[in-house]
Amino acid sequence: MKTCNKFFAELFGTFVLVFGGCGTALFGHAGFVGVSIAFGLTVVAMAYGIGHISGAHLNPAVSFGVWANGRMSFKEMLTYWVAQFIGGIIAGAILLCIWKATGVGATGVFASNGFGADFQAACGGDYQAISCGGAFLVEALLTFIFLMVILGVTDSRHGNGKFAGLAIGLTLTLIHLVSIPLTNTSVNPARSLGVALFSNCEGWSAMGQVWLFIVAPLVGAALAGIAYKAITCECKK
Amino acid sequence: MKTCNKFFAELFGTFVLVFGGCGTALFGHAGFVGVSIAFGLTVVAMAYGIGHISGAHLNPAVSFGVWANGRMSFKEMLTYWVAQFIGGIIAGAILLCIWKATGVGATGVFASNGFGADFQAACGGDYQAISCGGAFLVEALLTFIFLMVILGVTDSRHGNGKFAGLAIGLTLTLIHLVSIPLTNTSVNPARSLGVALFSNCEGWSAMGQVWLFIVAPLVGAALAGIAYKAITCECKK
Amino acid sequence: MKTCNKFFAELFGTFVLVFGGCGTALFGHAGFVGVSIAFGLTVVAMAYGIGHISGAHLNPAVSFGVWANGRMSFKEMLTYWVAQFIGGIIAGAILLCIWKATGVGATGVFASNGFGADFQAACGGDYQAISCGGAFLVEALLTFIFLMVILGVTDSRHGNGKFAGLAIGLTLTLIHLVSIPLTNTSVNPARSLGVALFSNCEGWSAMGQVWLFIVAPLVGAALAGIAYKAITCECKK
Amino acid sequence: MKTCNKFFAELFGTFVLVFGGCGTALFGHAGFVGVSIAFGLTVVAMAYGIGHISGAHLNPAVSFGVWANGRMSFKEMLTYWVAQFIGGIIAGAILLCIWKATGVGATGVFASNGFGADFQAACGGDYQAISCGGAFLVEALLTFIFLMVILGVTDSRHGNGKFAGLAIGLTLTLIHLVSIPLTNTSVNPARSLGVALFSNCEGWSAMGQVWLFIVAPLVGAALAGIAYKAITCECKK
Repeated sequence: MKTCNKFFAELFGTFVLVFGGCGTALFGHAGFVGVSIAFGLTVVAMAYGIGHISGAHLNPAVSFGVWANGRMSFKEMLTYWVAQFIGGIIAGAILLCIWKATGVGATGVFASNGFGADFQAACGGDYQAISCGGAFLVEALLTFIFLMVILGVTDSRHGNGKFAGLAIGLTLTLIHLVSIPLTNTSVNPARSLGVALFSNCEGWSAMGQVWLFIVAPLVGAALAGIAYKAITCECKK
Repeated sequence: MKTCNKFFAELFGTFVLVFGGCGTALFGHAGFVGVSIAFGLTVVAMAYGIGHISGAHLNPAVSFGVWANGRMSFKEMLTYWVAQFIGGIIAGAILLCIWKATGVGATGVFASNGFGADFQAACGGDYQAISCGGAFLVEALLTFIFLMVILGVTDSRHGNGKFAGLAIGLTLTLIHLVSIPLTNTSVNPARSLGVALFSNCEGWSAMGQVWLFIVAPLVGAALAGIAYKAITCECKK
Repeated sequence: MKTCNKFFAELFGTFVLVFGGCGTALFGHAGFVGVSIAFGLTVVAMAYGIGHISGAHLNPAVSFGVWANGRMSFKEMLTYWVAQFIGGIIAGAILLCIWKATGVGATGVFASNGFGADFQAACGGDYQAISCGGAFLVEALLTFIFLMVILGVTDSRHGNGKFAGLAIGLTLTLIHLVSIPLTNTSVNPARSLGVALFSNCEGWSAMGQVWLFIVAPLVGAALAGIAYKAITCECKK
Repeated sequence: MKTCNKFFAELFGTFVLVFGGCGTALFGHAGFVGVSIAFGLTVVAMAYGIGHISGAHLNPAVSFGVWANGRMSFKEMLTYWVAQFIGGIIAGAILLCIWKATGVGATGVFASNGFGADFQAACGGDYQAISCGGAFLVEALLTFIFLMVILGVTDSRHGNGKFAGLAIGLTLTLIHLVSIPLTNTSVNPARSLGVALFSNCEGWSAMGQVWLFIVAPLVGAALAGIAYKAITCECKK
């Protein structure tokens, strides 16, 4: 595949992830289980739909972990990052168009990630007021688990065939099941920035906290890139 | 396979899609998540059950997008369309029989698609009053995403083996998770017409709005047929 | 495989179907979606767990349809029937033991199938009072769809590989999503008899209505055995 | 694979099972269906993510049943047990950290397993007060079913290819759908001990009942190891 094909595939795929996942949160009235399923299914859809073009990373932290594990060049990772952030922001913008077409007022949290008492107050009583350190731990640890699964399931030393997309998507569903009430679940900087730009909330600022949802996933992903090497070391058949 | 086999397979398959999906909406008390899962599982059931006969399009927009991408003749597409609309209408008629057997009164919205304040009033408070333009955007965009997945997952240049049916079905679940409260989710003209014919609602007419759920999915599907060519151009191995 | 192996596999498999599905309905507090998923997953579990021994029919109507399609001898079908009914009844008996261990009183509906106003009154307001004819239509039609999927997905003229169990299980989930509030969903005489024997309900009798949930599924299955032949006739490669 | 690789893979995998499943129960606000899905998906994630390293048992009862069926040495089983209990306890400890980061008070039941009226009182009205004998029956029987599926699906005499992880994970979801309101569902001694150590409940003690959730799963697993041999005896092709 040419780079331009990969670029547009990642852009489109990340668009679908943010549009489908955050769109369900904003419009779907589907509860936390519905939103968790939706995020997972965006990955399933894209893994089988465009995986043959770009690998369907859809997430700067995934590309970072894949690079940290030595399976991708730094330059290609940067290309993926640009495509992913653009795709996420376009998704946020189109979600804003649909929001306006429903005639509801201010966007509020707009499915952004966050933490703390102000975030809880903006989201409502099903959410918890987790500390900044707790949110960092949750996001880094869940991204670590996510990347361990991704690196294991796509490890060329054994063959999972076409099950990779399903397993990775269902892992993202699991991650959301655990943590929506804690941080709204990011593990994906492009997902976080894509909607944070359009949120408009009294008393809490998505853009003021978005740094954590960029840094923590990248830290977790890098650690997984290293840990997966360790856990499989000297395991040549 | 002979044309008559394909015709009856598409008719039966579209019947199952409309009967299973709209039947869950009408009788299942399963919530939006349950209805979303049901629609997706109709595709899974039919993809593996009759996919070897007709390909299990089950949807005029899918056949349109497959034709726009150059994988089906115009004549065969028309045959599929006839079968799909007949299957959808038979499903609507049998759902009406079951509705009457439960002794409940007028059919009301009857799981039809719609938009706007009158539609919201007929459906209840979990729905939103999206504008006509917003509904068109939602339906065209979701059908676009649906066809991108379908065209990618069945692209003969790479092999997803038997995962296609599962991935496509789960994508339809995702599409419903996002948009049931907006338009009741069509992305399928045969599903829309099949139940609209039997709806009977004060203050809102399913047949008066069904045009949007025929036109918007076809527009989205055609654009996907073209876009998928572009995103994979010059990608011959 | 020897007949005795198949016999015990079908007995165990039908036990798991009735224990898992009806057990979720009785104890799981999981809603209609949860029960629908549970029934489907019993089939997934058994298809992959014991499918290599007996084919995992788990259902006299399935064996009947497989026989009507000419893929099983009448004598073997009878053996399967005996195993399936015994497995279903043992499941009902063990569910009764667990029910008693929770110290709750009379078993009531005990997840039995039924129809009509008395059944609705016994089950509560999420159920509908469907007529006898309507219940017969629902059960026969859903079993017809179930068998069409089973016969298609296991058709040796094409290869679905190991997807059959997943597709069939998910189809059973779909069937439950549509029809729990109508008849509590049978499509399986062994599931119906297995729990009806232990129900104990004022004003409504599971054993008085269980005939419908034996006859209607068998009718639907037989029609599917014939229809599948028709829909695939002259389709030899 | 070297033993140290297997050890760390089992430790990590059991950590993910307890962290993901119990974490959803503690923080996810996802209902019993959401928790059931979460536990199943931890197995899916680990089966495809680390299955190639250690087989992803994630559960001392699974290793015990695999040993009882003669597919694993006693010494290797002990190594797996140590890894699994350590992984489960680390998960409990990190869940405690996150709990404290949310500023909520005492940990209470903390997703521990239990039975009886005091357990019900501690958990709330969706739970049932099952007797000790009933709880033992439920846990032993469900572990028996779980191991029958695991032994069948991984039986080298036939090939389920890569479906094993999906089928086993979905079976664990089924098991939770049936029994969360009865015992909070263990079938896994490492899951039970991992959180029981950190529970802190007035009027009910997780550590006082944890013995049942170690013994009953092991009994069920051992019986399945023997029963699976019987049900497939003399079935050599």
